[in-house]
Amino acid sequence: MSERLLAVGEAPHTVGDMRGAVPQARGAVHDGRAAGAEADLGAGSQEAAALLDRTREAVEPELRRAVDSLPGTMRRVVAYHFGWEYADGRPASGQSGKAIRPGLVLAAARALGGSPTAAVKGAAAVELVHNFTLLHDDVIDRDSTRRHRPTAWTVFGDADAILAGDALQALALRVLADDQHPAAGRAAAWVASCVMELCEGQHVDTALEERSCDQVTLDECLGVAEAKTGALLGCACALGALYAGAGFDEVEAMDAFGREAGLAFQLIDDVIGIWGDPARTGKPVGADLLAGKKSLPVVAALTSGTAAGEELAELYPRLGPADVGKAADAIDRAGGRDWAQAQAADRMAKAVAQLSRAVPDPEAAGGLLALAEFVTRRSF
Amino acid sequence: MSERLLAVGEAPHTVGDMRGAVPQARGAVHDGRAAGAEADLGAGSQEAAALLDRTREAVEPELRRAVDSLPGTMRRVVAYHFGWEYADGRPASGQSGKAIRPGLVLAAARALGGSPTAAVKGAAAVELVHNFTLLHDDVIDRDSTRRHRPTAWTVFGDADAILAGDALQALALRVLADDQHPAAGRAAAWVASCVMELCEGQHVDTALEERSCDQVTLDECLGVAEAKTGALLGCACALGALYAGAGFDEVEAMDAFGREAGLAFQLIDDVIGIWGDPARTGKPVGADLLAGKKSLPVVAALTSGTAAGEELAELYPRLGPADVGKAADAIDRAGGRDWAQAQAADRMAKAVAQLSRAVPDPEAAGGLLALAEFVTRRSF
Repeated sequence: MSERLLAVGEAPHTVGDMRGAVPQARGAVHDGRAAGAEADLGAGSQEAAALLDRTREAVEPELRRAVDSLPGTMRRVVAYHFGWEYADGRPASGQSGKAIRPGLVLAAARALGGSPTAAVKGAAAVELVHNFTLLHDDVIDRDSTRRHRPTAWTVFGDADAILAGDALQALALRVLADDQHPAAGRAAAWVASCVMELCEGQHVDTALEERSCDQVTLDECLGVAEAKTGALLGCACALGALYAGAGFDEVEAMDAFGREAGLAFQLIDDVIGIWGDPARTGKPVGADLLAGKKSLPVVAALTSGTAAGEELAELYPRLGPADVGKAADAIDRAGGRDWAQAQAADRMAKAVAQLSRAVPDPEAAGGLLALAEFVTRRSF
Repeated sequence: MSERLLAVGEAPHTVGDMRGAVPQARGAVHDGRAAGAEADLGAGSQEAAALLDRTREAVEPELRRAVDSLPGTMRRVVAYHFGWEYADGRPASGQSGKAIRPGLVLAAARALGGSPTAAVKGAAAVELVHNFTLLHDDVIDRDSTRRHRPTAWTVFGDADAILAGDALQALALRVLADDQHPAAGRAAAWVASCVMELCEGQHVDTALEERSCDQVTLDECLGVAEAKTGALLGCACALGALYAGAGFDEVEAMDAFGREAGLAFQLIDDVIGIWGDPARTGKPVGADLLAGKKSLPVVAALTSGTAAGEELAELYPRLGPADVGKAADAIDRAGGRDWAQAQAADRMAKAVAQLSRAVPDPEAAGGLLALAEFVTRRSF
């Protein structure tokens, strides 16, 4: 899918001009309004896609080697989850994901003058952690589909999905413990702290979903997005900085860059979840709305104090398939969509500011910026 | 409870004579036959109890500091699980456990000439890992009681128990990542590998429990006991050796010592689970049998090829409270109890042989030996 998007090369922008990225990001976000828009995917996107291709090439052998070291059943559940095998163990050709997080590790390492090759174990560890949380979140949320396939718990049962997730977290930290790179120890501490934040984020998210619509604030939802999405993207960037031998301030700024970009990513993801093209999202129309998900545009609308917000509050707790269009329209009229897009642009601006703090040379920051824009302007 | 046992000081033995420990261990195991026997608890047990007291004193502040660093709800669930707080957050006076695993870390460090104080973070990490697995195993096994209290998942729900376990694993590895000791990196690798083995062990255990009685072999059950109990006791001893700066062979031998002692411990635990005094085990009479647990004496009886074994096979799948005595008797007549006790003695002999390989000086090995005997001769 990304290949198709990337074949469309329009409106190239100069990644060297970081400041210029802000209005562009804002423009890109607004383009999302026309679901499936293929405009404005230029040189930056091509650069990002090439970077992700190179990342997969560098990191996947490390990932596969690590997963192959797991004991029998743990290996099998994880290989299924990654899309490398069918449930019965036959090899499958599925890709394990877009490799955005490992891509951030390697790009951050390069941006700070380090060698991406030396940071491959760090990149693999972040991807293993990401997948451990997916395995457990799917159990907790009872999600039945992931990457267009039945989730691991629906195939192997809750017990094995929980245990495979546990083993995967341990594997991530063993990859770092086995790494001879001088940054590996600090990277392990950073990853472990990030996992604790991810856990608390998933807890708050689950708790919010159980509350009634009028009991949820926008700040709480932004907090969840930061803990669940921002934290690991920040951690990925921080790891790249650590592997490049960067100082504390730069590592912190890179973490902040990843967090802000992660929030922008989540905001756009939520917009796409409501107004995106099902053929591209891989989810049926209105799936997020029908599930009663308290996504950011929904909560922005519910807390807007507008008539449309009140309409939505009436509608949302008992939403049927016939009301999905009406709900999406109410969210839009209540300003939920505009707010999410403006917030995403604002977060991208903050991300860019943090990036320029860590990497003053715009040329060096190009890859990271391209990646951040890529994930926040995607229309799939 | 241990205080009462320890007040009875009979038949002291010389811990300096390691070889002499084997028949004594065998004798102690047979003493278990008279449930609640308080005989044969001598100087070795007093030494072990004092060692465990010192361990708790040294390790608990580190444990509490680590747990206090967890984010809000994760901290609360874990503090409840450890018995430090009630479900509503009020402080509770409960002890978090006997501290056998951290005790082994510190005793192993001392046995190899290291400083127990320097190994405190390693000891805390092992205890955190142990408790992470308890949190998840209770969810998976639907166990409702742990240390005489409702299990965390029954109080906070599955989601929070899973997440708190995840956070606890991360915390264990962050404690090691933050440790400046030169052994901490290798310790983290050892712990992470151990976690993967624990996960696979719990998977096989769950799978075996779902099979019918005639589909389970004794070797499979011994494999589960090694992976679920032996692995972490071995890891604890290995960590002590690592913190003492021991060489690879000594670390391996210490791991093997802990594994063998762990198997002996599990065998005795299973015997106590069937014939132990409920007032001491904290479980109702025959709870393990009523749950249909495929413990080692049960599977030994089922696979004995005896008439009593066939009787048990008939009885076991549909066991009611009235049949508990009959089942225990059939296991006994089929040789399940004698086999378990002889196996335990055999494993203790192997443990002692491994210990003497790692620590040739019997004087230095005394603390470890006392601990191993303490856990395998307990009648509570």
